Amino acid sequence: MSQHTVKDLLALAPSGQEVEIKAWVRTFRSNRFIALSDGTTINTIQAVVDFENMSEELLKRVTTGAAVCVKGKLEASQGKGQSSEIQVSGLEILGDSDPEVYPLQPKKHSLDFLREKAHLRFRTNTFGAVFRLRHGMSYAIHKYFNERGFFNMHTPIITASDAEGAGEMFQVTTLDLKNPPKNEAGEINYSEDFFGKETNLTVSGQLEAEMAALALRKVYTFGPTFRAENSNTSRHLAEFWMIEPEVAFADLTDNMDLIEDFLQYLVKYALDNYRDDLEFLAQREAQEEKGKPEAERKAMGLIERLEFVANHKFERLTYTEAIDILRNSKPFKKKKFKYPVEWGTDLQSEHERYLVEKHFEKPVILTDYPASFKAFYMRLNDDQKTVAAMDVLFPGVGEITGGSQREERLDVLKRRCEAMGIEEEHVWWYLESRMFGTCQHAGFGLGFERLIMFVTGMGNIRDVIPFPRTPQNCEF
Amino acid sequence: MSQHTVKDLLALAPSGQEVEIKAWVRTFRSNRFIALSDGTTINTIQAVVDFENMSEELLKRVTTGAAVCVKGKLEASQGKGQSSEIQVSGLEILGDSDPEVYPLQPKKHSLDFLREKAHLRFRTNTFGAVFRLRHGMSYAIHKYFNERGFFNMHTPIITASDAEGAGEMFQVTTLDLKNPPKNEAGEINYSEDFFGKETNLTVSGQLEAEMAALALRKVYTFGPTFRAENSNTSRHLAEFWMIEPEVAFADLTDNMDLIEDFLQYLVKYALDNYRDDLEFLAQREAQEEKGKPEAERKAMGLIERLEFVANHKFERLTYTEAIDILRNSKPFKKKKFKYPVEWGTDLQSEHERYLVEKHFEKPVILTDYPASFKAFYMRLNDDQKTVAAMDVLFPGVGEITGGSQREERLDVLKRRCEAMGIEEEHVWWYLESRMFGTCQHAGFGLGFERLIMFVTGMGNIRDVIPFPRTPQNCEF
Repeated sequence: MSQHTVKDLLALAPSGQEVEIKAWVRTFRSNRFIALSDGTTINTIQAVVDFENMSEELLKRVTTGAAVCVKGKLEASQGKGQSSEIQVSGLEILGDSDPEVYPLQPKKHSLDFLREKAHLRFRTNTFGAVFRLRHGMSYAIHKYFNERGFFNMHTPIITASDAEGAGEMFQVTTLDLKNPPKNEAGEINYSEDFFGKETNLTVSGQLEAEMAALALRKVYTFGPTFRAENSNTSRHLAEFWMIEPEVAFADLTDNMDLIEDFLQYLVKYALDNYRDDLEFLAQREAQEEKGKPEAERKAMGLIERLEFVANHKFERLTYTEAIDILRNSKPFKKKKFKYPVEWGTDLQSEHERYLVEKHFEKPVILTDYPASFKAFYMRLNDDQKTVAAMDVLFPGVGEITGGSQREERLDVLKRRCEAMGIEEEHVWWYLESRMFGTCQHAGFGLGFERLIMFVTGMGNIRDVIPFPRTPQNCEF
Repeated sequence: MSQHTVKDLLALAPSGQEVEIKAWVRTFRSNRFIALSDGTTINTIQAVVDFENMSEELLKRVTTGAAVCVKGKLEASQGKGQSSEIQVSGLEILGDSDPEVYPLQPKKHSLDFLREKAHLRFRTNTFGAVFRLRHGMSYAIHKYFNERGFFNMHTPIITASDAEGAGEMFQVTTLDLKNPPKNEAGEINYSEDFFGKETNLTVSGQLEAEMAALALRKVYTFGPTFRAENSNTSRHLAEFWMIEPEVAFADLTDNMDLIEDFLQYLVKYALDNYRDDLEFLAQREAQEEKGKPEAERKAMGLIERLEFVANHKFERLTYTEAIDILRNSKPFKKKKFKYPVEWGTDLQSEHERYLVEKHFEKPVILTDYPASFKAFYMRLNDDQKTVAAMDVLFPGVGEITGGSQREERLDVLKRRCEAMGIEEEHVWWYLESRMFGTCQHAGFGLGFERLIMFVTGMGNIRDVIPFPRTPQNCEF
C-alpha cells in the first residue's frame, strides 16, 4: 500500500515527480483524458494519455469502471478546476469493465435503479459521498463520547426481553420450522430452542445500557436494532443502527444539554471535515428540488439546514406550551394542519416543523410529554400526568431524536410496569438496579440513519445504509 | 453534569477547595472513611466523615453500593496511596443499598457468581476494568482506521446469503412457528415470511465489505456476528463482535503489514491509556495463576505478554515451513504434542504456541495454507494447492486473527465455488464485482472478544462481553 490514493495525490504539490496510482476509470474522453477515482475523495485525478504513442488495443480497454495502474509525472494542470494531473508514461489494465454489460455508465441513474445494484452503487458520486459521510458521522460519535469519558457498551442483539414494547419483533430460532417440538398443550417447546427460551432481535439496548451507566457513570451504545413492522415508507427500515447514551447522576436538563451539544458537534464535524461531499450533495438536492412543485420545495438548502442547527441555540419548552402555541397559530386557525392539535395526542411532523421553521426559527426541544403515549421507564413528573421526556425537532424533518430522564424510584416504576402490562419477572434485573444505589439518570436514542438522512439530504432511508432491509427485501 | 467525577477529582490539586460529588459507596470503614467509586477509573476517592458530628441514622445508611452525594473540602491526603481526600461537610443518601440483600459485598466473588449477576457486575473492580478496556480497544480501532483513510461500513445483520459456510446459523423469521404456512409439497412457504425468503443472522460482513472496498478503496466493519454452534467452551459465544477491514489494490504482504501495525497499535494504546486497569488485571491474573499447578501456569504475566507483542517484529513464514519446523522439534520427536503434525491438516493451539513461545519467541504470521481447509474466497496460489491466507499467532492463545488475499479472478473464483458447492445464484453480486474492474484486494477478520481476552487476561469469553449469549443462556 505504498502507492498513492487519489486523495493524497491531489494534496501533493506537482513538480514533475514520478508517481504511480491504482484506481478505477470514471470517464475517458477525447481518447486523451482519463478521470481516475478510488473513493478516497469525491474528486478525480486526471491522467493525460499521449494516445499517438499508445496501442489502440490498450486504449480501447480504458472504459468506465475498469481498474488500472497508471504511472507518470505529476504536473500542474492546464485545465480549470484541476490542480494537478498525471502525464502518463505507463498504463496497465488490471481489471476490465465491458461497457456493453457494466450497469454504471457515465450518465445519471435513478436512485431506484441503483438500489437494485447496491453492490455497485458505492462507485457513484452520490453514494460515495453518502458513505464517506456515514463513516464520518460514525467516527465523530465515537470521538465525541470518548473525549467526554463515556464508555462504549455492546448491548445484546439477541434477547429474551420484550420490555420496551417498541413494536413487532423478529424471532431468532434454531428450531426446525417444518417440525418444531411441541409440548402436550400443543405449544412450541422452547426449551429445545438454542437458548432454551423464545428469543428475538433487540429493539433497543437502553435497558442494558442503564445497568452499565449505574456502575460506570457515562456509557453509550452504537449497534443495530430491529423492527418487524410492515412499513414500506421512505423513513423505515427493518434493520437500522442506534446510538443510545446513558448518564448516571443526570436529570432532564443535563440530558438536554448533552443532546444539544452532541448534535451541534456532529453537524459541525460534517461541515468542517466533509465539505466537498456536502457541496456535491447540496447540488444534487438542489437539482432534485427543481423538479418538484414550488409548494413542496424545501425552505433551505442542505448546507443552510446544517448551519441552522450548528449556529442556533435550541429553544426549550414543554409539550403543554407547544400545544398552546400551535392552537394559537395561523395554520391552526385557518385549518391548514392536517392532523388535530389537542393536549394528550402526539404531535405530527407538520406541527413540529411549524414550531421549528416558522415560530421559533431554531431547533426545538419539547419536554414533559403526556405519560399516556410514552414508555414505562420515563420518569413520572410531580403532576402525575406528564413524564420527563424530551424530543428534538429539526427543520425539514421534525423529530430527529428523543430521550428521557428514567424512573429511578422502585415503587413508581413497579406501578408503571403494572399499568402497562409488563410482568416483573421479565424485568427483574432492571427493577433490581433500583433497589441498590438507585439514582437519577437519563439518556436518549438517536436513529443513526435518520441522522445521516439529515446530514446528506437523502430523501429515502434505503439510500443511507449500504444494504437496506425492508419488507420483502433482503438482497445481498 | 457540572459535578465532578472520581477521575477528575483525583486529577485536581487539593487546596481546600469546596467540591461536590455524586458516586457510589465502595466501602465504609471505621465509621470514618468512605471509598467512593463511579466507574470513571479503577481508583476510589476517600471521603472522610466527622462521625461525632453526624447523625448515626444517616451513617448507618452508608453501605456498599449506596448512591450518595458528598460535599466538602478537597485536602491533601494523610493516608498512603491517596493523593487527595474530601473532608465531608455534607452527606446525602441518594439511593440506599440494603446490605442484607445487596449481592456485591466487599469480598471476593467468583466470576461464575458474577456472571449470574451480569446486570450488577459492572460495579466490581474486575469488570469495571474489563469494560473500560473494552471501550478503549473499540475506540482505538475506530481511531486507527479513521486516521488511515478507512471508511466504517455497516454490513447487514440479517442476510439471505449463506456463502461463507462458516457454520450453523440462527434463523430470523416472523412466521408463526405453531402454524407456519406450507406449500403443496409440505415445505415452509417463505414467500410469506417478512423478507419473502428464508433469512439468517450474519456470520461475517466480509463479502459485503469487499463490495465497498472495490469502490472506496479502504473500508472496515465493526459489528455483531453469530454462530448457532452448540459449543459450551470458554472461547465461544453465539453472539460476538467482529472487525473486518478490506483493502483494494492490496496483496498478502500489504495485508500482513496492516495486521501487524494494527495489532501493535492496539496493544500499545492499551498500555499507554489504560495502565491502571491493566495493572489491576495483571495482579488479578497473577493471583489466579498461583492457584494453578505449576505446569499450567502462563509463561509470562499480562503486561509482559502485551509488551511482547508491542515490541517484537512479527516473524513471517509459510505454513509449509512451519510444518517442517514442528516436525523437527523436540516436543514432536518426544511425542509431546497431543495432535498430529502433518502437511494438509490444520495446526492446533499447542503447535501455534510452540512456534511463538519456544521457537521464535515472537508473534508469528503463518501464510499460504492448504486450500483444502480454507474458504472459497481465498486467492489460489500458483502451486494450485495453497491459498494466500494468513493467521496471526500470539503467546498464550495461539491464533488470534486471520485473513487472506481474495480471489479476484472470475474464472478461478467460479471454479472454487463449484468445488465447494456454492451456487452461483446465491453469490451473483459477489461474482459481478469480479466482472467489472476487478483488482487485487485483501483483508482480515478479528474477533473482538478474543482481542479483549488477550488484552485483559480474562480466561472466559463470557467475562469480556456485557451480556454473553451461549447455548441455553439468553438472560437479561
